[in-house]
Amino acid sequence: MRIWKRNEIAARFDVARATRMVEQGFIAYSQGTARVPPIQNIQFESVNGECCIKSAYIVDASTFAVKVSSGFYNNPAAGLPTNNGFTVLISAHTGEPVALLQDEGWLTSVRTAIAGQLAARLLAPLEVEGIGIIGTGSQARLQLAYLKPVTACREVHVWEPIPERCARFASDMSAHGFEVHVHDTAEEVAGSANLIVTATPSREALLQREWIRPGTHITAVGADSMGKQELDPGIVARAGAIVVDSIVQCSQYGEVSHALSAGLIEKEALVEIGTLLAAKRRGRNDADRTQVTVADLTGVAVQDAQIAESIVSPKARLQAMRTVSAGEKLPGAKKRIPHV
Amino acid sequence: MRIWKRNEIAARFDVARATRMVEQGFIAYSQGTARVPPIQNIQFESVNGECCIKSAYIVDASTFAVKVSSGFYNNPAAGLPTNNGFTVLISAHTGEPVALLQDEGWLTSVRTAIAGQLAARLLAPLEVEGIGIIGTGSQARLQLAYLKPVTACREVHVWEPIPERCARFASDMSAHGFEVHVHDTAEEVAGSANLIVTATPSREALLQREWIRPGTHITAVGADSMGKQELDPGIVARAGAIVVDSIVQCSQYGEVSHALSAGLIEKEALVEIGTLLAAKRRGRNDADRTQVTVADLTGVAVQDAQIAESIVSPKARLQAMRTVSAGEKLPGAKKRIPHV
Repeated sequence: MRIWKRNEIAARFDVARATRMVEQGFIAYSQGTARVPPIQNIQFESVNGECCIKSAYIVDASTFAVKVSSGFYNNPAAGLPTNNGFTVLISAHTGEPVALLQDEGWLTSVRTAIAGQLAARLLAPLEVEGIGIIGTGSQARLQLAYLKPVTACREVHVWEPIPERCARFASDMSAHGFEVHVHDTAEEVAGSANLIVTATPSREALLQREWIRPGTHITAVGADSMGKQELDPGIVARAGAIVVDSIVQCSQYGEVSHALSAGLIEKEALVEIGTLLAAKRRGRNDADRTQVTVADLTGVAVQDAQIAESIVSPKARLQAMRTVSAGEKLPGAKKRIPHV
Repeated sequence: MRIWKRNEIAARFDVARATRMVEQGFIAYSQGTARVPPIQNIQFESVNGECCIKSAYIVDASTFAVKVSSGFYNNPAAGLPTNNGFTVLISAHTGEPVALLQDEGWLTSVRTAIAGQLAARLLAPLEVEGIGIIGTGSQARLQLAYLKPVTACREVHVWEPIPERCARFASDMSAHGFEVHVHDTAEEVAGSANLIVTATPSREALLQREWIRPGTHITAVGADSMGKQELDPGIVARAGAIVVDSIVQCSQYGEVSHALSAGLIEKEALVEIGTLLAAKRRGRNDADRTQVTVADLTGVAVQDAQIAESIVSPKARLQAMRTVSAGEKLPGAKKRIPHV
């Protein structure tokens, strides 16, 4: 078993390859050719920690993946990273462990940003007038960076509760070519943007239905486990299209779960990102300039399996998968994305 | 993260310490102070393989465990081991991976044999007249070896479908001080033994109710996932005591599940091994010489967490756990057990 350290992983990383493989993972998942057991989650209340274990096998792939992702939120105060996660790739032919990727959660961050990019390619309005970002952490930054190939818009509106963090975000992301405006409320952000990404660990709605401009798309990536929430369920209820990474997962947690349990939407309204990618079709009705759309991303283990494989043996996996990537037909060129 | 190879793990292994810690794991599990998410299971039909992922955290322990256990049954024909499993111990304070134990399933085998020994200590008749073993694989051998401290009986009756394997088992286990009789049928084994262990990957009943002698105890360790079965559900229905490692797991698969779904027993009849260990009481009524008892062992992740910790930092974990081991009060001295 080869052990990969974070710097080796980052050096080998190729964004175009990783994006293609994550796309193919979503397609396999939605077509039923991936095996993804329910996620294991363990809480460590006394140290404000959590751990989730995800595994996935894409049928006929040469490896499968087990990913351990942790969030120990007291760690930074002790000078330690929040996420010490890792992924193990295991031979699907013999069960032998092939590679241990000690990426400390980096691959999880990147595959989440890739999913955000795919969602924007499928759902962002054709004319983005302003990008709204709720949250200023590393995932919020990555989400913004990964929007670059999808839209020419560089006008960014940001909010989170702590002003110092907003200022740092503005300064850092300006260096990446964005024109960043810091706001005092999430409502102001919603009023200035028609492509919004929420990337926070919030446990209550940060965006209200009445704030959302007609024609806006919102990607919510924060609600990755039970109890988390970023959107007023009324936003989901109002949406003309609701795209999810996994119908199963998003029905249990994620933004969609709140709208479902409140009886505001039916499960039949949900469309998986993999279904759209396979059909090579957009998720929104571009003829309707007022349509609000939502993408709810909870993180699916096929993403983890595919991004890990893109590092370890990219050619083998790409050759093995016969499904054609839908990416080329969608708006948005594949360029190198600066890593934030 | 320190990486432990199989030979290092075996060298550090201490059976008395491991047994105490597995006991404490069962107690924590049954007392509700362990967190054990549902097991993840992935099948690889085309290569006759399976993989299960178990994780467990015993509250207030310094580490938690994620174990990947694989069974790729075509491997031996290619000169490879069936199980390439490994365990990762992770800090419960910071989420940092502490140790990777590449035991290739060895610790799983041993903790399963320890559970068999605990079951025998709690349930074997006081006078064992003959030990019956159904199966001749490595787990069948370990189960027999681990019975040595529990009973003075050395008379063994064995059966499995392939006679050559029975002969090899007899020859190998004779070298460990047993007097082994090979039989042509499982029925003959049942007729010659009142302490029986079944350790096979069978998917249908190998022992029938009418074959079991009054006063017999049977430990079944084979049914560790959906679809597996070793006992006629009538045996479970007839049993005066049904002891399980996990009520939750054994209700889903395991021998007990078949009796439950056939309506032959009620869930209330099940007692967990950890409950008996905590109460320091035997699982059978020794006054009733005709009572048949069954132990159904599906394998619980607390065993994996505890045996791994017994290798990596035994002292820390034993000190941290305040529950007194029930082992001392039960019959059966703790001796070094030969590894088969």
